[in-house]
Amino acid sequence: MGAPDLAETPSQDASIEPLIALVADDMVRVNEEILSRAISDVEMIPEVAGHLINSGGKRLRPMLTLAAAQMCGYEGPFHIKLAASVEFMHTATLLHDDVVDESEVRRGKAAARMVWGNEASVLVGDFLLGQAFKMMVETGSLDALAILSNAAAVIAEGEVMQLSAAQDINASEDIYLQVINAKTAALFAAACEVGAVIAGRNGQERAAFNTYGEALGIAFQLIDDALDYSGEQALLGKSVGDDFREGKMTLPIILCLQNATQDEREFWQRSLHELDQAPADLDHALKLMTKYKALEETIARARFYGNQAKQALSVFDDCAFKRALIQAVDFCIDRAH
Amino acid sequence: MGAPDLAETPSQDASIEPLIALVADDMVRVNEEILSRAISDVEMIPEVAGHLINSGGKRLRPMLTLAAAQMCGYEGPFHIKLAASVEFMHTATLLHDDVVDESEVRRGKAAARMVWGNEASVLVGDFLLGQAFKMMVETGSLDALAILSNAAAVIAEGEVMQLSAAQDINASEDIYLQVINAKTAALFAAACEVGAVIAGRNGQERAAFNTYGEALGIAFQLIDDALDYSGEQALLGKSVGDDFREGKMTLPIILCLQNATQDEREFWQRSLHELDQAPADLDHALKLMTKYKALEETIARARFYGNQAKQALSVFDDCAFKRALIQAVDFCIDRAH
Repeated sequence: MGAPDLAETPSQDASIEPLIALVADDMVRVNEEILSRAISDVEMIPEVAGHLINSGGKRLRPMLTLAAAQMCGYEGPFHIKLAASVEFMHTATLLHDDVVDESEVRRGKAAARMVWGNEASVLVGDFLLGQAFKMMVETGSLDALAILSNAAAVIAEGEVMQLSAAQDINASEDIYLQVINAKTAALFAAACEVGAVIAGRNGQERAAFNTYGEALGIAFQLIDDALDYSGEQALLGKSVGDDFREGKMTLPIILCLQNATQDEREFWQRSLHELDQAPADLDHALKLMTKYKALEETIARARFYGNQAKQALSVFDDCAFKRALIQAVDFCIDRAH
Repeated sequence: MGAPDLAETPSQDASIEPLIALVADDMVRVNEEILSRAISDVEMIPEVAGHLINSGGKRLRPMLTLAAAQMCGYEGPFHIKLAASVEFMHTATLLHDDVVDESEVRRGKAAARMVWGNEASVLVGDFLLGQAFKMMVETGSLDALAILSNAAAVIAEGEVMQLSAAQDINASEDIYLQVINAKTAALFAAACEVGAVIAGRNGQERAAFNTYGEALGIAFQLIDDALDYSGEQALLGKSVGDDFREGKMTLPIILCLQNATQDEREFWQRSLHELDQAPADLDHALKLMTKYKALEETIARARFYGNQAKQALSVFDDCAFKRALIQAVDFCIDRAH
């Protein structure tokens, strides 16, 4: 497979370890909350939920909630429930996504729907969403509930938008940005913002965390979409070109289309719009990405949003949390190396 | 088709009209709220949502919320949002149910998934659930949020339980009652209870409305499950025997199995457990239901729960709302005629 090499000098400070270390104690409690809330007398629920919950996700989103709350000086217990809610919302989305995308693999394991069926994936997703809202209610914070319920609607809206734009080779970079803003960045933004809100910081700190989360989420998704076409992908337990096979209009393809020759346009029309794919098509798509430097361009945009995220934290004084959140941005971007 | 005749003298007072009349003004506002909240810039969302919203459902659940709130003397604006939330939760459940059951028809029209696909049904359901929670948050009532978020988790739990018990000819009447309690009665109970709660009635009125809704919901589902095997079904735009074809273990079959001969047990084993169905099997199933008076027995149980529902309202003084809610119980049961 001729997957382009994304080599470029990674940032010296790119690391998720400082963030992991700072929230480690709280994450133990979040993980306990997650496990205890995935329980039900209906056996299939903990089975399906556990399959995904124990599949080795990084739990980046709940770590952001914990870090934001702690950085804002929160000393109560409710950031734990909010962090668990955020992770359940994410897990529910993944369960539904796999049904929508007909995915067979998730995090290197069989997708839940391949083991228990689409029905169970839809319904257990619904259950986890219900549990997420129950935990939010237990915090008593109507502000946090407003932020997260809005995110739930926006995420679904983004997924439907992606469905509508699927296989549309005229989809613009603008549409693409709207989609990833809604389907990914909205939850990152909400995860960060509720941390500030539960700590009672409703002014510029709240806004700063929203901006940080949103920009980080966009950068994160841009990198995901670049990785889908890169050799490193295999290391993550995914296969190269999943998005291509599904006809997903992600930025690397949009960039190739912007300057495409007539022949190339016809190639994308056939392979993506009509999903009429021959075995050699993915290799050809990868060659076009090399020709147009589409992955480098995608990563450059991720860096732009990453810088926005870091910039948003300038309202805060220097502290270990701030440094860890900045390093986390570089970590998300440097996954591409 | 030899569908058994369910004829029995219907209750003289069975009518939904008094309830409809009492909440008519509020329902205009609920319908406006429903339409305005199903809107999105993503065109597919109002299309899919509107297909189901405009398909002529009775909107019984939001009417219950309005009636409970008004009966408890509520004069604020928030029962409208709660009623719309309840209907959105119900609509989201229907969209997901049709995917889970692979249904082709809903309310006499093509199911949304047949027009826009399973993907859109799952995602638009998620969107409506998000919108439902946003409306609840706008009421500012954490109690109402606690009741409805709990119902959301319980409904999904009931659906998974039903999935686990599907095609299991050893499923007991007890399991069946647990399933319908969760998948149907929980939302009826919550719809009624939040009406009392938004009116500030947190004592015995709240409990009474919870009991009324729960018992009414069980009666409602029992009748639905009887209707699936009766000739009247065709009048509702559904076909007789949908549950049979899906291998759904509803009470009429459970009652037939309780006293089944060895031959009959083998028939259910083959047709329901193995879903190995010949064209004449539905007729044979209907004959067994006549033999064991399974539909009459199912309706008798519905009457029992209907009486429980009426009894629950005894804590209230006589008033037009109370009379209308009692007549609504009889209406739900006498649908079987």
